[in-house]
Amino acid sequence: MDRSSQEPVTQMTRMPHKASHDRAELDALLDSVSLVHVGLVADEHPVVIPTLAARDQDRLLVHGSTGSRWMRHLASGKRACVCVTSVEAIVVARSLFESSYHYRSAVIFGAFSPLEGESKVQALDRLTEQVIPGRAAEVRKHARQELAATTVLSMPLKQWSLRVSDRWPDDPDEDREGDAWAGVVPVQTVLRKPVPAPDLREGIPVPASVARLVSP
Amino acid sequence: MDRSSQEPVTQMTRMPHKASHDRAELDALLDSVSLVHVGLVADEHPVVIPTLAARDQDRLLVHGSTGSRWMRHLASGKRACVCVTSVEAIVVARSLFESSYHYRSAVIFGAFSPLEGESKVQALDRLTEQVIPGRAAEVRKHARQELAATTVLSMPLKQWSLRVSDRWPDDPDEDREGDAWAGVVPVQTVLRKPVPAPDLREGIPVPASVARLVSP
Repeated sequence: MDRSSQEPVTQMTRMPHKASHDRAELDALLDSVSLVHVGLVADEHPVVIPTLAARDQDRLLVHGSTGSRWMRHLASGKRACVCVTSVEAIVVARSLFESSYHYRSAVIFGAFSPLEGESKVQALDRLTEQVIPGRAAEVRKHARQELAATTVLSMPLKQWSLRVSDRWPDDPDEDREGDAWAGVVPVQTVLRKPVPAPDLREGIPVPASVARLVSP
Repeated sequence: MDRSSQEPVTQMTRMPHKASHDRAELDALLDSVSLVHVGLVADEHPVVIPTLAARDQDRLLVHGSTGSRWMRHLASGKRACVCVTSVEAIVVARSLFESSYHYRSAVIFGAFSPLEGESKVQALDRLTEQVIPGRAAEVRKHARQELAATTVLSMPLKQWSLRVSDRWPDDPDEDREGDAWAGVVPVQTVLRKPVPAPDLREGIPVPASVARLVSP
C-alpha cells in the first residue's frame, strides 16, 4: 500500500483486525478471482461495471470493446476503483447479529491507462491465462481487426486496501451457553463437465486446457 | 425499468441482444445472488463496497454497522449504484476474441433510505432468509443494542438495466472449419458440509436451516 498517499478511502477505520497490508495476500486474492467490479464516476453519478481482470506483476489488467463507453471513460485516465471479492464461507453464529461471511475483499484505487503493441497482445494472453491456463497456445493468434476492436487497460497496484474475515463466530457468553448451533458452511466455486457447442465439428476432443479446468 | 427517467447510464448502447427488460428476470437474479457491489461517489472519487443484499418485493435491502462510514454516506440519500453479477459458465470459443462468459448482470441506480422500527426488523430477517432460509426462526430475537448498532437501508427497484449472456460461441466460418474446440464449462457455487465451531457445546446438532443449505 502506498502510505504516502493522501487518499482517505484506503484508511480502515473499522474492524482493524480484518485489515491486511500483506501484498502477497493481495496477489493471492487477485490470482484466484477473475471477476472484478470497477467503479467510476460519470456525470457525478456512481457506475459499477463487472469485468474480467488479471494481475500482471504490479498492475491489474482489464479489457473490453473499443465501442464500450465505459472502456473509453476508463482509458481516458479518469479515477477508478476496482473491487475484488471472494466469499469463502457462511459464518453461522448463535445470533443473526453475529452471523456473517468468511471473505477476502480488496479495493484498488487509481487510474487506468491503455496498452498498445506487443504489451497489449501479452496482456490479452495474460487475461486468457487467468481464466483458462494454456488456452492461448492452443488457438490461432489474434487477428489484426480483433486487436483493433479491443481496448486493454492497466492500473498500477499502488493504492489498495484488503480485508480478510476468517474467524469463528464471536458469540457472547450468554449465547454460547444456549442451545443454538454455531459454525461455518464452506462456499466453493466449481467448474463442471465441458459441454461441446452444437456446431462443433466431429472428432475434435476437449483440449487439455479445458480438461484441466474441471473440478475433481 | 423506469422509462421516463433521464438517467443516461441505463441506456444499453452495445450488444442490445443481451439486454433484458423483464422484471421477472431481474427478480430471479436478485433472489439467487446474495453478494452485491455498491458504488458511491466520495469527494468526487468512485468507491465500491461489497455487501449482502436481498430483494423485498420492489426494493433492495442492505445492512451494515452504524459505525460504517459508507453506510452513513448511503443512508444520507446520496446517489448509489448496485451491481449484481452471476457468472454461469466459461464460454470457450475457437479464438480468444470470441471467448467470454455466460453471465447475468444487473445494475440498479438510485438512492437508499434508512428503515426503522418494525420494518427494520423485518428487513433484517429478510436479509437472513436470503442467505440461510429458516434461520431467523431458530435463534433468539434481535437484542435492542444490536438493532441500535445496525443500519438497514432500502433502495427502490425503479431504474435498472439487466444483461443476460447465454449463447454458444459465435465463431466466424473460417474458425468453425478449423480444428479448435468450442463449448462451455458450467460454473457452479456449492455449499459444503458444515463445520462446527470449536467452542460449540456438545450435543447440539446441525440445525435444519443449515442442513438444507448443503449442496447434494
